[in-house]
Amino acid sequence: MRRYALFTLFAFLIASRAFADSGMWTFQEFPHGLLKSEHGADVSSAWLERVRTATIRLSNCTASFVSAQGLILTNHHCAEACLDENSSAQRNLLSEGFLARTRDRELKCSTQIADVLMDMENITAKVNAATQGLDDKAANDKRKAVKTELEQQCEQDSRRAKVGPYKCETVDMYQGGQYWLYKYHRYSDVRLVFAPERSIAAFGGDPDNFQFPRWDLDMSVLRAYGADGKPATTPNFLKINPAGPNAGQLVFVSGHPGNTSRLLTVAQLETLRNVILPRWLLRASELRGRLIEIGKSSPEAARIVEDPLNNIENSIKVRRKQLDALLDDRLLDAKRTEEAALRAKVAADPQLAQSIGDPWATIAKAESREADLNLPHVFIEGGAGLGGFPGHLFGYARTLVRAGAERAKPNTERLREYNDAALPRVEQRLLAPVPVHPQLEKLSLSFGLERMREWLGPDAPIVKQLLSKDSPDILAAKLVDGTQLADPAVRKQLWEGGAAAVDASTDPMIVFAREVDAEARAVRKRFEDEVEAPVDAASEQIARARFKVYGTAEPPDANFTLRLNFGTVQGWNENGHEVPPFTHLAQLYERATGEAPFKVPDSWLAAKPQLDMQTRFDLSTNNDIVGGNSGSPLIDVDGHIVGLMFDGNIHSISGDYWYDTELNRAVAVDPQIIFEGLRKVYKASELLRELGAPSE
Amino acid sequence: MRRYALFTLFAFLIASRAFADSGMWTFQEFPHGLLKSEHGADVSSAWLERVRTATIRLSNCTASFVSAQGLILTNHHCAEACLDENSSAQRNLLSEGFLARTRDRELKCSTQIADVLMDMENITAKVNAATQGLDDKAANDKRKAVKTELEQQCEQDSRRAKVGPYKCETVDMYQGGQYWLYKYHRYSDVRLVFAPERSIAAFGGDPDNFQFPRWDLDMSVLRAYGADGKPATTPNFLKINPAGPNAGQLVFVSGHPGNTSRLLTVAQLETLRNVILPRWLLRASELRGRLIEIGKSSPEAARIVEDPLNNIENSIKVRRKQLDALLDDRLLDAKRTEEAALRAKVAADPQLAQSIGDPWATIAKAESREADLNLPHVFIEGGAGLGGFPGHLFGYARTLVRAGAERAKPNTERLREYNDAALPRVEQRLLAPVPVHPQLEKLSLSFGLERMREWLGPDAPIVKQLLSKDSPDILAAKLVDGTQLADPAVRKQLWEGGAAAVDASTDPMIVFAREVDAEARAVRKRFEDEVEAPVDAASEQIARARFKVYGTAEPPDANFTLRLNFGTVQGWNENGHEVPPFTHLAQLYERATGEAPFKVPDSWLAAKPQLDMQTRFDLSTNNDIVGGNSGSPLIDVDGHIVGLMFDGNIHSISGDYWYDTELNRAVAVDPQIIFEGLRKVYKASELLRELGAPSE
Repeated sequence: MRRYALFTLFAFLIASRAFADSGMWTFQEFPHGLLKSEHGADVSSAWLERVRTATIRLSNCTASFVSAQGLILTNHHCAEACLDENSSAQRNLLSEGFLARTRDRELKCSTQIADVLMDMENITAKVNAATQGLDDKAANDKRKAVKTELEQQCEQDSRRAKVGPYKCETVDMYQGGQYWLYKYHRYSDVRLVFAPERSIAAFGGDPDNFQFPRWDLDMSVLRAYGADGKPATTPNFLKINPAGPNAGQLVFVSGHPGNTSRLLTVAQLETLRNVILPRWLLRASELRGRLIEIGKSSPEAARIVEDPLNNIENSIKVRRKQLDALLDDRLLDAKRTEEAALRAKVAADPQLAQSIGDPWATIAKAESREADLNLPHVFIEGGAGLGGFPGHLFGYARTLVRAGAERAKPNTERLREYNDAALPRVEQRLLAPVPVHPQLEKLSLSFGLERMREWLGPDAPIVKQLLSKDSPDILAAKLVDGTQLADPAVRKQLWEGGAAAVDASTDPMIVFAREVDAEARAVRKRFEDEVEAPVDAASEQIARARFKVYGTAEPPDANFTLRLNFGTVQGWNENGHEVPPFTHLAQLYERATGEAPFKVPDSWLAAKPQLDMQTRFDLSTNNDIVGGNSGSPLIDVDGHIVGLMFDGNIHSISGDYWYDTELNRAVAVDPQIIFEGLRKVYKASELLRELGAPSE
Repeated sequence: MRRYALFTLFAFLIASRAFADSGMWTFQEFPHGLLKSEHGADVSSAWLERVRTATIRLSNCTASFVSAQGLILTNHHCAEACLDENSSAQRNLLSEGFLARTRDRELKCSTQIADVLMDMENITAKVNAATQGLDDKAANDKRKAVKTELEQQCEQDSRRAKVGPYKCETVDMYQGGQYWLYKYHRYSDVRLVFAPERSIAAFGGDPDNFQFPRWDLDMSVLRAYGADGKPATTPNFLKINPAGPNAGQLVFVSGHPGNTSRLLTVAQLETLRNVILPRWLLRASELRGRLIEIGKSSPEAARIVEDPLNNIENSIKVRRKQLDALLDDRLLDAKRTEEAALRAKVAADPQLAQSIGDPWATIAKAESREADLNLPHVFIEGGAGLGGFPGHLFGYARTLVRAGAERAKPNTERLREYNDAALPRVEQRLLAPVPVHPQLEKLSLSFGLERMREWLGPDAPIVKQLLSKDSPDILAAKLVDGTQLADPAVRKQLWEGGAAAVDASTDPMIVFAREVDAEARAVRKRFEDEVEAPVDAASEQIARARFKVYGTAEPPDANFTLRLNFGTVQGWNENGHEVPPFTHLAQLYERATGEAPFKVPDSWLAAKPQLDMQTRFDLSTNNDIVGGNSGSPLIDVDGHIVGLMFDGNIHSISGDYWYDTELNRAVAVDPQIIFEGLRKVYKASELLRELGAPSE
């Protein structure tokens, strides 16, 4: 299981899976009664606040503070981009691992952030008041504007009130049944402290991804720094219990599940099944094949493709199992039954029926429009046809072109991702000095253009516009060889020069991004007006019906906001065979073949005589987590960390749509192996001392 | 649209599409009444016999005799493998084209054959008598044995009767509602006479494949030779009408449509939709990406990957649109309605209901078993996990291992593909001196092993057996670098040495094929007993019901046997825009970009001043054809060729499951461009003379 929201530009889909003992609850609506009745336990509001403010949202994952000096525990795969950007042909941190024995050697992760949720404000009434009486399209535009306004106001207030400054983000819960303003403390300076070799962090590689039993030390350690350049002061950290949990023990996961689709209508699920997932999988599978072959051409090429290849293989596995789940008629039949039951209850309440109309029909109609618009939306506005992934250059060019135009407008009239609250992050990503590899850039562009020509057809206007003279390969080479955007200083100049500088630029990638922008914006507007607007309006109505009929007995779908859920340490029964909840170190060496991805790194072979073979390695629980929860702390009732979530079993992927109590399991690294490794393999005495653990 | 049955070993699926004005009729049950009522025309039995014996089944396509000296007209893409095997790093016939100005320069197509259907015998009663009273599994085994027996008897009889010798093949019609014995005259020596450059044969490449309007000279000319090494005598040839057809004209297609699924049950279609097509597409898309990147590594690599890449891109387009069709709920809803109607009619006839039982339920149960067995079946028995495509070496090794074992058994007890009737073709393919490219072989094996490990999981016994020490790359390299099977002489030695030689061989690829054979045979037997046996038995019952209720008013599903259908030359209305049925030469030059795949070859640029720009190029009709019909003659009511079928439009692909009168169209090369090209671009005067056309 890997990072969240990786392919937004590439494909508008979010890595996600779900499992549930009792749902992914918000901290503000945590079901104390349910916890009491199911487990005879409770947690105090002080416990909740401590856990909430010790939990971190990274750009792609979850993490937690584990010392008072800003030390952060998360997964190895959550730090892979950081390891990659700090690597070179001479020094491959992904394969070699990294340990900063002193703080001055900690490495900057230039695109990473660490957000801590400080406050949550319900703004449902404000948003609804703003859109009342408007038609769907106007309401959709207005909703965006009012969200921007509330975010801006929130950030201004927080600066004045000196509680912050906060980063403020509006959040839709229950598909628009509730709107919230989430207020974060943001650390924009995050550095790398420790990562083991990828061969032990992801032992078993893609074949073992989403499998259990496992033997992965999928951990890394980062540190948050303040604006003053000093380690952050984080007294609300969580202490790690080196013994780990016991089988059957009550455990909590605090984290940021990325996305679930449990409350979608049948029509929306059918669009996923019929259109979005199959198309995405076809393109991603080809890209996987291309990356694999490029990686075989040289060791340096292998290094360069490793991070994007790991990402895409993870996402392919997720979406493949999501599609399997949706193709299993039992799932859609169950969803149809649920939907019919809700509709029947609505019909039985004339006042309710009158007030909400037939939002299911509205959505079904909009979904048919979504199917029509999907290809241009993905390829042109989504950037999949223009080199959006795994390359960076087109993304830089589009950001510069759009930011130039948008920053000149009033805040509430901009595309939402360029409003004032969003701009600091846009700037950080744009100017981060991450390496740009021409081979990957050409691949992205050529592949994107080729597939856009295939799927939209050679006679589509955008295809004719771009490829009337050049082949995809030739155009890609011209753009990548001709652009200066790989240089952060050039990007900075254009960013600071604003619209005038961008408009005057003759950089071929900027010219290219300018040439497609009108069409991309037009496609986006069509999508917003004809799909998003009616779906959002109708979803609000369904949420109203759901609240009226069922209350908030179900938690809202995951949306990369902070959630807490509880479960127990347990295995499961796989086709009559009991899978125990813990693995042990001895089994790692038994499973090793000597060849990647089943190769134990030299450090672990050398240290083997010193290691306790009975050390617990990974463990499984029935917590309800999905992608985005990667790196989440597994917490006991005393508020101590007893595990580091990093994956789920294969059955967990269908949890995006429903939870299978029998089979779905979450997978964590056991603290026992974390300490055994830090102590005997990596001899990380300073790190152990900071974690409050003996180094011998 | 490309060759038929290309990926049998790779994936057990057949390229196919369907369109229908009036269905793909067998010659023995041709609906004269329907032709009369729809078009006011008729054809005589002499016409039918002449057309039948002038139509050729190639190994992968259809073709027709166009001179009395064995001259054969078919598509360029049907001869691509022949062009590929006769190419080298120094001489690329795919890109350069080929013309033998004298017969001694005609090039052997070492794996090609030309079969002509001489006789058809209904053996339904014999097969049914043999299986009567047996349970499904025993009946399935017995059915295979009796088919082998009847083929053997037929070949023996034909040698004695001196009408032959014939190649005899049993054929299932109506999913086992009828069994036939088809008797062919086989030419095993087929040579290449002419092929244009691929850039004009497949102008527009993959982007334009299954599109219309088109400008493709998708033709090649072959020649059948007799056993005496002399050109075959073929007085029953079809003359080409150089003027081509007119809009609205009645036209016939005689050919060998590969496969349709119009009579399958809903449960069978669901297996295609949920299991077979998505999985195949994922693997094929990755392979496509790998081939593309390999092809970019050097001009020679580009040459080597061209043929397999063209094949796989064509198949991806076909299956992608097939999946789209099955994901469109309207299709399955219509199939459910049809099925319910037939079941209701059966239920209303107690005697019929009593006699056939509930075959739909039987099939549904077997399909669920098929879904379970699909992965091991595809990867192990199908060879997809063992390097089956695009490599040759594993296929050679398996053939040698199995033929060794099977030839030692009595004819009726063998695997069907190794019975006496099949062996000459097995031997021809095995010993053909086609080039073996180590890079493609390693790709096939490494890719297959990797995906088998991914899909079956690292703990599957076969995966542990093969990859307990080696990575897929290392094992692939060991096998490909170590084997001698690339040498046809080595294969010949092992073939002639039989089981003893194969068992004694230490060739690593032979050892590998031996090591997986027991498991592969076990998987196959499970599949035959648990899927094929109940499905075949139940399908016979459904066919009986269908005959009782509807008669044979519908033609049987396509199965690569000879069919005749009729339609008219016509375009269609695409979203309110009329697509005319003819394209013209002038438009080719307008569409050209100068870059592949929209690059007009130099020969056509040089000849441009001499060419008549109003020459008709390609044309569309509403004939009902699918993959396998490639190369079929389009015939007028006088029995003259007025076109050369090579493709369908994009809507035609859903024709695998149903026919859309409004949108489905077949696409052919117009004789006008064939003669214009031969005359002015290729100056193929000898060929023109043999075609009875003036060369000036």
